[in-house]
Amino acid sequence: MPASGAYDPHAFKALTFHDTIQRFHDGSDTPRAYLERCLETIAKREPVVQAFVVCNATGARTAADASTARWQEGRPLSAIDGMPIPIKDLLETKDMPTQMGCEAYSDNFPKRDNAAVWALRQAGAVILGKTVTAELGGSHPGPTRNPFDPSRTPGGSSSGAAAAVAAQMVPAAIGTQVGGSIIRPAAFCGNVALKPTQGAINRGERQATSMSTHGVHAGCIEDMWQVAIEIAQRAGGDRGCPGLFGPPTPPTAAKPERLIVLETEGWDRVDAASQAAFAQLLAHLQHHGITVLRRTDHAWIEALEQAIAHAGTVCNAITGWENRWAQRNLVDEHPDGVSQRAKQALARAEAMRPDDYRAALLERETAQLCHARLGPLADAIMTFSCPGPAPLWPGDVPGQPLAPRPTGNAVFNYPSSMLFAPAVTMPLLSVDGMPVGVQLMGQQHSDARITAMARWLLETVPPVVVP
Amino acid sequence: MPASGAYDPHAFKALTFHDTIQRFHDGSDTPRAYLERCLETIAKREPVVQAFVVCNATGARTAADASTARWQEGRPLSAIDGMPIPIKDLLETKDMPTQMGCEAYSDNFPKRDNAAVWALRQAGAVILGKTVTAELGGSHPGPTRNPFDPSRTPGGSSSGAAAAVAAQMVPAAIGTQVGGSIIRPAAFCGNVALKPTQGAINRGERQATSMSTHGVHAGCIEDMWQVAIEIAQRAGGDRGCPGLFGPPTPPTAAKPERLIVLETEGWDRVDAASQAAFAQLLAHLQHHGITVLRRTDHAWIEALEQAIAHAGTVCNAITGWENRWAQRNLVDEHPDGVSQRAKQALARAEAMRPDDYRAALLERETAQLCHARLGPLADAIMTFSCPGPAPLWPGDVPGQPLAPRPTGNAVFNYPSSMLFAPAVTMPLLSVDGMPVGVQLMGQQHSDARITAMARWLLETVPPVVVP
Repeated sequence: MPASGAYDPHAFKALTFHDTIQRFHDGSDTPRAYLERCLETIAKREPVVQAFVVCNATGARTAADASTARWQEGRPLSAIDGMPIPIKDLLETKDMPTQMGCEAYSDNFPKRDNAAVWALRQAGAVILGKTVTAELGGSHPGPTRNPFDPSRTPGGSSSGAAAAVAAQMVPAAIGTQVGGSIIRPAAFCGNVALKPTQGAINRGERQATSMSTHGVHAGCIEDMWQVAIEIAQRAGGDRGCPGLFGPPTPPTAAKPERLIVLETEGWDRVDAASQAAFAQLLAHLQHHGITVLRRTDHAWIEALEQAIAHAGTVCNAITGWENRWAQRNLVDEHPDGVSQRAKQALARAEAMRPDDYRAALLERETAQLCHARLGPLADAIMTFSCPGPAPLWPGDVPGQPLAPRPTGNAVFNYPSSMLFAPAVTMPLLSVDGMPVGVQLMGQQHSDARITAMARWLLETVPPVVVP
Repeated sequence: MPASGAYDPHAFKALTFHDTIQRFHDGSDTPRAYLERCLETIAKREPVVQAFVVCNATGARTAADASTARWQEGRPLSAIDGMPIPIKDLLETKDMPTQMGCEAYSDNFPKRDNAAVWALRQAGAVILGKTVTAELGGSHPGPTRNPFDPSRTPGGSSSGAAAAVAAQMVPAAIGTQVGGSIIRPAAFCGNVALKPTQGAINRGERQATSMSTHGVHAGCIEDMWQVAIEIAQRAGGDRGCPGLFGPPTPPTAAKPERLIVLETEGWDRVDAASQAAFAQLLAHLQHHGITVLRRTDHAWIEALEQAIAHAGTVCNAITGWENRWAQRNLVDEHPDGVSQRAKQALARAEAMRPDDYRAALLERETAQLCHARLGPLADAIMTFSCPGPAPLWPGDVPGQPLAPRPTGNAVFNYPSSMLFAPAVTMPLLSVDGMPVGVQLMGQQHSDARITAMARWLLETVPPVVVP
């Protein structure tokens, strides 16, 4: 049993940005001063947390000074002008290397901005650094620790993004998700986070897989939405996709009337304390007059549960196949530059044939159809964002088989990935002194609607604390 | 009036590969000897044609020797083991630079194989070199000349691929198409070529746009199909796509019973001689008992004609928007490394807003619906592959406005691109001593079926020659 963590949802105050800009307007604060406070926190927390691969303080100060001048002239470029924001180290940045947590990319420095990074700069955001990712966005972990208990994982693969927000170093951070790489670490670290509809935020050069998204980790729902919509307004969505739909400012809170609780293949893996906390949360919701539907209440809900009963296998098969040729190229060029974990995943993918991939695609499409059918039944789906608090991660033991899930289990995240569904995680539970996230999942393109409902929940329902 | 070209469809004999492998089996020929014959032709024709950016004879000889050994051991890797094939210089190759016809990429040398190149090597093909592309796959031309008349364009952007096949340097070549970059140059150069269903051949790192494909230029339909299916069996299709469907060897010839003639927005731009040739071809088909349907014969055909009446505008808007951030990055880093033509296209894209892109996507989806409706009416669509013979290209005139279409007009190619439809071009017409291609377009995923019908047409209908 791990020692209890230091997370108290009633005391914890995340760093926020949206409530500061009034002071930029009236001159009582500046983006440069805001940045300096972030840099102070980073100096204090980074030796333990290790969220950053690169922190470009010089470049950030230059950008923050330019932003300060724009606010003083009354001409900010957007509502996130001056926001310090780091980028997950899978995305290209023209002024910093892109090492992807992978030895083989140690010299990789394309002088180009990913589409989302390009859009953030156009909106005046201060690109502060690159955050740690599990190797190539997979499961081989980097050095980052959970800010609420350094003996535990922050989750992955967006490890540094989640931890930087949890350690109050930054108000928001850019992560990416293929299987569960945004929602899970955000849930382990007490962030709010948006994994948008597939294709809603332009992935730029990172278009290799059919079910990855860029997303936003943040300390509050207002900043989360604002960052997402500012990117989408400038860079749009992925090629062929209409991009993120929603208002130019954070959606107003909206009470859900009916919610579907989805068990997924993760339900049986949740510890008793987390289950008790979730049950308390549902009781609160019902007390507020919200109807809760479950698999036994409707055949269509049961059909979706069955269609996603092997979501992890389907997701890993699809992504493995899609990454196959590129990772084979990489391993051939850098035989010692890629982890054993990644090589094992590649070997599984290389055993696949085109018809195996086609079968997995059909399973995904069938599940999407089952999900679409549920649209009229409820306002959204609710479930855990992770199967309990972040697990301990003492590191691999030399000579022993590799631990299968050093950054935690993505079992509650595969469904939204394979359904192309937007998901917002909220820090609504605290178990054993650690955050445990709860997510809302919506129909494709309902990102703004689930954000509005998440806002209502965050403003109305107090977090449930279980020892 | 240009001088007549040197193309005689009855005399011209393209280089083929499929009919050689029996001699590899019995030892009377070898892949190395085949390659040497190709290199001799290249040495002879290249000074005028200028199809290649890089010809890697050393690497090709090593690969051809390994292939020769496999055939001698009776263990070829595939039916294209030993085929010399060059790659359009937009695709990454681990042993040659990837310069994209663009000054800004003059030092670009990623040590990686594009998915299709990787698959070709796995099938034993001999990657012979990189062929000239119009800059970045756009309209700014490279140095390549039309092998049947060096004063004319070979078409673009797959200029070198089409010219290398037409000059009998190679039996097949890999091209790519966004608007009309495979079918048009193939048609100007007397190739057969497949522009597959969108997503049917894995584009590897080139996934930035929603309507580009890899495709195959070849001297005969057998080699065309074999190359395509060998790639797809190994690398599959684009992420999220089921990949190319069809048999592992060239489909047998199949007579079409009913064909729809589509006018597209190109009809009025075709010269009288080409129109006369096409009319003669249709008369031949009707003589063979094939029913020909036109826009006046069915309201659904008219609906498709109307839905594609501005295909060029729609295609250019979609692709412009999708390339916007990457090209802005490129121009910012290399202000003098990108042509004025490309900068003009970027300026148009940068004037777009997300809703303009969404509107173009809806036009594309509507056209796809109209096309799908036609499935039961006919076996395929037939139309020109290009609006007449390849135009003269004397080069830009300093001080004058840039010529708008130096590689010819893609007006007959935008429809198959925006419909995601497979297209096969056949050298069925000769006008003014130059080839003029005719294409079959099918429903999505009917690549094998239109190949079978193209094979029937090539075997049955003699090319129409008009002075």
